[in-house]
Amino acid sequence: MPTPLRHAAAGSAYHELERRFRRLLALRDAEAMLHWDLATMMPRGGTESRSEQLAALKSVRHAMLTAPDMGDLLAAADADAGLNDWQAANLREMRRAWTHATALTEAQVEAMSRAISACEAAWRSARAESDFAAVRPKLQAVLALVRECAAAKGDRLGLDPYDALLDEYEPDVRAAEIDRLFDPLASFLEGFLPLVQDRQAGEPPVLPLPGPFPVEVQRGLAVRLMNMLGFDFDHGRLDVSLHPFCGGTPDDVRITTRYDESDFASALMGVLHETGHALYERGLPRDWRGQPVGEARGIALHESQSLLIEMQVCRSRSFLALIAPTVRDAFGGEGPAWEVGNFHRLYTRVEPGYIRVDADEVTYPAHVILRYRLERAMIAGELEVHHLPDAWNAGMQELLGLTPPDDRRGCLQDIHWYDGAWAYFPTYTLGAMTAAQLFQAATKASPDIPAGIARGDFRPLLAWLRSHVHSQGSRLNPRELLIAATGSPLDPVYFERHLQRRYLGVAAS
Amino acid sequence: MPTPLRHAAAGSAYHELERRFRRLLALRDAEAMLHWDLATMMPRGGTESRSEQLAALKSVRHAMLTAPDMGDLLAAADADAGLNDWQAANLREMRRAWTHATALTEAQVEAMSRAISACEAAWRSARAESDFAAVRPKLQAVLALVRECAAAKGDRLGLDPYDALLDEYEPDVRAAEIDRLFDPLASFLEGFLPLVQDRQAGEPPVLPLPGPFPVEVQRGLAVRLMNMLGFDFDHGRLDVSLHPFCGGTPDDVRITTRYDESDFASALMGVLHETGHALYERGLPRDWRGQPVGEARGIALHESQSLLIEMQVCRSRSFLALIAPTVRDAFGGEGPAWEVGNFHRLYTRVEPGYIRVDADEVTYPAHVILRYRLERAMIAGELEVHHLPDAWNAGMQELLGLTPPDDRRGCLQDIHWYDGAWAYFPTYTLGAMTAAQLFQAATKASPDIPAGIARGDFRPLLAWLRSHVHSQGSRLNPRELLIAATGSPLDPVYFERHLQRRYLGVAAS
Repeated sequence: MPTPLRHAAAGSAYHELERRFRRLLALRDAEAMLHWDLATMMPRGGTESRSEQLAALKSVRHAMLTAPDMGDLLAAADADAGLNDWQAANLREMRRAWTHATALTEAQVEAMSRAISACEAAWRSARAESDFAAVRPKLQAVLALVRECAAAKGDRLGLDPYDALLDEYEPDVRAAEIDRLFDPLASFLEGFLPLVQDRQAGEPPVLPLPGPFPVEVQRGLAVRLMNMLGFDFDHGRLDVSLHPFCGGTPDDVRITTRYDESDFASALMGVLHETGHALYERGLPRDWRGQPVGEARGIALHESQSLLIEMQVCRSRSFLALIAPTVRDAFGGEGPAWEVGNFHRLYTRVEPGYIRVDADEVTYPAHVILRYRLERAMIAGELEVHHLPDAWNAGMQELLGLTPPDDRRGCLQDIHWYDGAWAYFPTYTLGAMTAAQLFQAATKASPDIPAGIARGDFRPLLAWLRSHVHSQGSRLNPRELLIAATGSPLDPVYFERHLQRRYLGVAAS
Repeated sequence: MPTPLRHAAAGSAYHELERRFRRLLALRDAEAMLHWDLATMMPRGGTESRSEQLAALKSVRHAMLTAPDMGDLLAAADADAGLNDWQAANLREMRRAWTHATALTEAQVEAMSRAISACEAAWRSARAESDFAAVRPKLQAVLALVRECAAAKGDRLGLDPYDALLDEYEPDVRAAEIDRLFDPLASFLEGFLPLVQDRQAGEPPVLPLPGPFPVEVQRGLAVRLMNMLGFDFDHGRLDVSLHPFCGGTPDDVRITTRYDESDFASALMGVLHETGHALYERGLPRDWRGQPVGEARGIALHESQSLLIEMQVCRSRSFLALIAPTVRDAFGGEGPAWEVGNFHRLYTRVEPGYIRVDADEVTYPAHVILRYRLERAMIAGELEVHHLPDAWNAGMQELLGLTPPDDRRGCLQDIHWYDGAWAYFPTYTLGAMTAAQLFQAATKASPDIPAGIARGDFRPLLAWLRSHVHSQGSRLNPRELLIAATGSPLDPVYFERHLQRRYLGVAAS
């Protein structure tokens, strides 16, 4: 039982909050483990009971976070002058969680949960049949609730509705800043893409890699590379799920992949991507386990850690040269298709397409910018759901010169909006830009980093990331963290330079 | 939020209780899944965070069960004349859980938890070094608290202290009844064991089965037999853990085993044993999922379901004749060691030994009776911990004619007392007796059952168990359930007859 506040000694409100959040986050970790099990181990007949377990945990966590005395505890702790930097940051993150949780009424939370369940189910069949009209009313219902909740959160936070949604994924990041980053990036890519396509047209074609590639061999290779990158199997696992992810907890990180026996390349790169996420989780500050300030700092920074490993490191010629012999030997491959040049062409192939998740790193931002612009317009009430397919197709034509032949390859392709995740899309490209900026700062700070990568020693890179990013937890906001780590706020120029080096050979990559 | 009672319509207190228990049991199920993961999947570095998760769940469940308004809700629901049989039984089980949970103070629960943690850790090294003195003070501390808690529960329940502990595992079962069952059983076994040993001395020796037995082949065979017995892999899994168990939930039953490549026989029988537990869980009443009345009816009945499958069915000559060719083919075995006669001798070998978990079904009850008598004396204050080794060894000499050469093979062998599980041991032998009584009732009721087993069709047996045991949940107490299923309360004569048939050939088994 909490000590009544009127009897509390100085600092006891803060310590009571730490006690509560430790429990709350332990329950959240339990949920994460049950999600992992659901995706990897659970027999299909377990669905219903698992839903009950997850709903019970979610409801208990919500009740704890919104307990009637929480506001008083936060106020009492705010008045405590004795908190150190980390404690003060921890208190700020507690308040952030509480503010977001209490900004909506229980009725709003329940209505949203119901609307999302119905919409997501309808989306699955609508996408399969490429029938947007079939899910349109349910998406309209979700959007109406999202707008209502965004307005409520905006009132509470003193923010525009879209910014209020964004704040939950990216603390203190605002749409105005995203515009400032995405608009020049879109212009850059408009000119850049044709240059890359011209250049690649003059290169040899990607030679096919003949399979089959047995799952056990793929797995063995993945484990070997994970170990090389610094993944700690005493504190984590690699398993199989339909949709790859990184889950679990910092001390027990569970990453997954999906193997295709006719193509090893995508599972392998997928594992390396998830390993980037895992290294971040594992490196979060040990002293702040189970407290909000010990958690990862937003979705974009998390994505930056996977993209730094995947895009900056593992698709580089230097890394591919390092692993090409190992990969060839593992699968018993022979001939020019197994040489590093072909691997590099395979892993840096650029080709505009309809589907975001299949996109290369050059065209990916266009997919994100499209969705960002459309969702902002929808939240602002400037774009109605029944005009979405037309707006989508027009945007694809403008950004990538393609018009999707159907909505399955257009506005039905992603689960996000149908599942209630609005203001999430920009984090992918914020993550890609952050990855480029961090990697350039790291290699500039320490020449050991590229030299280490070339010989398979990732300790210098990991040490820099641990110190400048991972161990910072949520002490700073994303902008402050990036300035502290790289000397400047997020700037698309680092990402653009990376693309110019890799795809136009402006310098070695 | 619960409806305030003063505004409640008739029946709303009961429905509020159902709502709360559904959530409470969903959290308990979440805990069960996390325990399974801990034993099967978790990397060793996950121990600390998993402990936090489990402690948080346990504490939340305790708080829900002992919420200040729970007593009023139970009283209001008790006054509800409109409950049907199942609802009334459900309410009775809710009250039972609440009574046990509120009988102890928070201070007692916490002191017990700390004492058990310390004692269990000390026991692990004490057992390894066969050094009882090293754990004795910690066991004394545990016993003192167990006695205090037993007295507190006894006061609350109007029971003797030992009966109060027993009531949590075996609702409404009392030590006086156990004495009535165990004393004649001990006498029976005293005369029976020499007869069996004489008879087996005249039989051919058990021929060794030459390995190795690859794990994948053992697993394939286990899965095949599980399917044959009716285990539903859409609602369950088979995995590996150090200590085999049946966990999970009725719709997602997780059983485990441990393979030894030099001996397939014990893992195989272990899987069949756990399958018996799993079939019970899976057969619990579908309409009462997530409610106390829908749960298994006590530990002894659960053990009866595993022992019915393992001891009554799978060690029978009829079952062994059925599977012998399959087993032989799976491992490519040849010669007389692979014939059913040798399998039967292997699986029915009787030999007194020091270790309970290695004991055969004839000598197993002696191990249990010893522990039951000793723990009753300790709870009653008639036996002090420092006299335990002597009392143990004297009891072993009396019951099995053996004196353990050291405490590792004596009073240090089992975790139970050191881990706070007092009054648990008798459930093993109550389970064995219940299994014999149920199986004899089942085969008497339906000749299809033995005929089905002989040809590998377990549907008649499963149908009988589903209808008479599994689907009953906790509607009746163990005694009532057994009377309803077999026509009489628990009687050792069924178990004795079973042993006489199997080990002395009094009739076919």
